[in-house]
Amino acid sequence: MMAKRIAIGIDIGGTLTKVGLVDREGNLFGHTDFPTTEKKSFQDYLDRIKDTVDDLLSKLDFDYELVGMGVGAPNANYYRGTIEYAANLIWKGVVPIVADLKKHFDLPIHITNDASAAAIGEMIYGEAADMRDFMVITLGTGLGSGIVANGQLIYGHDAQAGELGHVVIDRNGRWTGLGRRGGLEAYVSSTGIKRTVFHLLCDSMEDSVLRDYSFNDLHGEIITRAAEQGDSLAQQAFEMTGTILGQQLANFTTFSHPEAFFLLGGLAKAGKWIFEPTKKALEENLLPFYKGKVKLLPSGMMDKNAAILGAAALVWNN
Amino acid sequence: MMAKRIAIGIDIGGTLTKVGLVDREGNLFGHTDFPTTEKKSFQDYLDRIKDTVDDLLSKLDFDYELVGMGVGAPNANYYRGTIEYAANLIWKGVVPIVADLKKHFDLPIHITNDASAAAIGEMIYGEAADMRDFMVITLGTGLGSGIVANGQLIYGHDAQAGELGHVVIDRNGRWTGLGRRGGLEAYVSSTGIKRTVFHLLCDSMEDSVLRDYSFNDLHGEIITRAAEQGDSLAQQAFEMTGTILGQQLANFTTFSHPEAFFLLGGLAKAGKWIFEPTKKALEENLLPFYKGKVKLLPSGMMDKNAAILGAAALVWNN
Repeated sequence: MMAKRIAIGIDIGGTLTKVGLVDREGNLFGHTDFPTTEKKSFQDYLDRIKDTVDDLLSKLDFDYELVGMGVGAPNANYYRGTIEYAANLIWKGVVPIVADLKKHFDLPIHITNDASAAAIGEMIYGEAADMRDFMVITLGTGLGSGIVANGQLIYGHDAQAGELGHVVIDRNGRWTGLGRRGGLEAYVSSTGIKRTVFHLLCDSMEDSVLRDYSFNDLHGEIITRAAEQGDSLAQQAFEMTGTILGQQLANFTTFSHPEAFFLLGGLAKAGKWIFEPTKKALEENLLPFYKGKVKLLPSGMMDKNAAILGAAALVWNN
Repeated sequence: MMAKRIAIGIDIGGTLTKVGLVDREGNLFGHTDFPTTEKKSFQDYLDRIKDTVDDLLSKLDFDYELVGMGVGAPNANYYRGTIEYAANLIWKGVVPIVADLKKHFDLPIHITNDASAAAIGEMIYGEAADMRDFMVITLGTGLGSGIVANGQLIYGHDAQAGELGHVVIDRNGRWTGLGRRGGLEAYVSSTGIKRTVFHLLCDSMEDSVLRDYSFNDLHGEIITRAAEQGDSLAQQAFEMTGTILGQQLANFTTFSHPEAFFLLGGLAKAGKWIFEPTKKALEENLLPFYKGKVKLLPSGMMDKNAAILGAAALVWNN
């Protein structure tokens, strides 16, 4: 029997580093994670990755051929194989992670940012296998985006394309983490909807179960549950969030005319509460010749280990 | 001596149809134009194109080989070879122009919208030969855009990518020709700056030579001349227009991270009056990691016959 071809997928997050072994069909043959900050030095961190991969490989009970390694990370530069000035990671400046990993692994290694990895994952393992033009919007702490046009991921001149969370939608609007006003992710993300809840708690005197939560204690699932239990304020928060997202997806359509937008991440898990107002606002705001032609879909990676699969997909895409 | 390879470039505008013969280096070997509405029937119009091309070819005093024909037109669909529901043309519905032209010309024939043709022209004949990621913004009656990423023009799922003139920048803003509020081209285009002049004429009681012009008589060159002669209101109109354009180019940067934006068309000919405020606002509004890395340049086609060259460039690009 032929050896099974396996890719290593690694997702480096501010909190956790996730590692898994994935085949071309998206089957996961073992995965694990460890705290990204567990090791103080970057060299120790690389050793930790090496040990973790070796451990996972040692448990495989079939012949395999390692095809390559894909890494998803914030502020990753695909062209240079670096992580650059990542605000949420402990290593500062420019980290030549691909070159360093190659000292441990004699394999092709690719890195890109997490939302771009998700878009490639959608092509390889998700619902976009037959699509040449689509976008993946990740709704987590912030809003990330991976854009595919002509069947290729758009990397941009210096590998920093797809920062749609920072599109300014209101010049007098909410502050973002980058010290600017009105960035989209200040409204549309797990954090954004929390901020909208707090806006509504301030703006009205309406009763709501959400009046019992501090900002730090409030999480997306609590807002979803409140909406499901009929809490009008929670429902309004979803309505406002989806409306803004739909309006902006209509704007994004004028760039690359995608066949579909896929939503992924914590806020996307709220299901109809976020999808319905988004779809309505998208359709209402599309130009006449786009109407009825742009799909809004849950990511095909939603219930899978999207972070590891997205990273592994880089291997099959290269 | 080898026969010179020649492409036919045709630009179909609401007023004029321009026809020219172009080599790979962008040299124009004869060109002419005729009123697009001269012939009532579409078949007569095709005959007129055939006669015009034959006439231009008959004047060539060297051996040539016809390589193909490129057509730039509003609402052109690259995939289907059609012009669809063009508001500014007299032929209604879906016009299968490539199939019809092929009855007259036994050549490869490609069609795309005029701003996309301009982007391909910039790659083949202009200043973007070495760029893989850039955008051309055409500032005429409206605002058109051609987007190149990964070295390829972005056509989009149904060939309607690059409609950035319709990005909504203010939901309560000015009406556009499509009956929507706040589209970018209502502010940034030859028409847009006229509207801004009229806003200023209304908003202030400041003296201005522009108070002597009706809306229909006012043209871009008049505003430029007034600015050059020190007319403060005209200068404010450029300042406001460039500021809005720069802010939006900063937003567009988050999409495909272009190396450069090229400006083309009537308003771009105003030179420093439009470039300076645009560049300032672009730089001020770029995210930190883009700052200093995105160029704003006049199109390399500005003083050439951009429409014919853009159309001919389609041939060399395919």
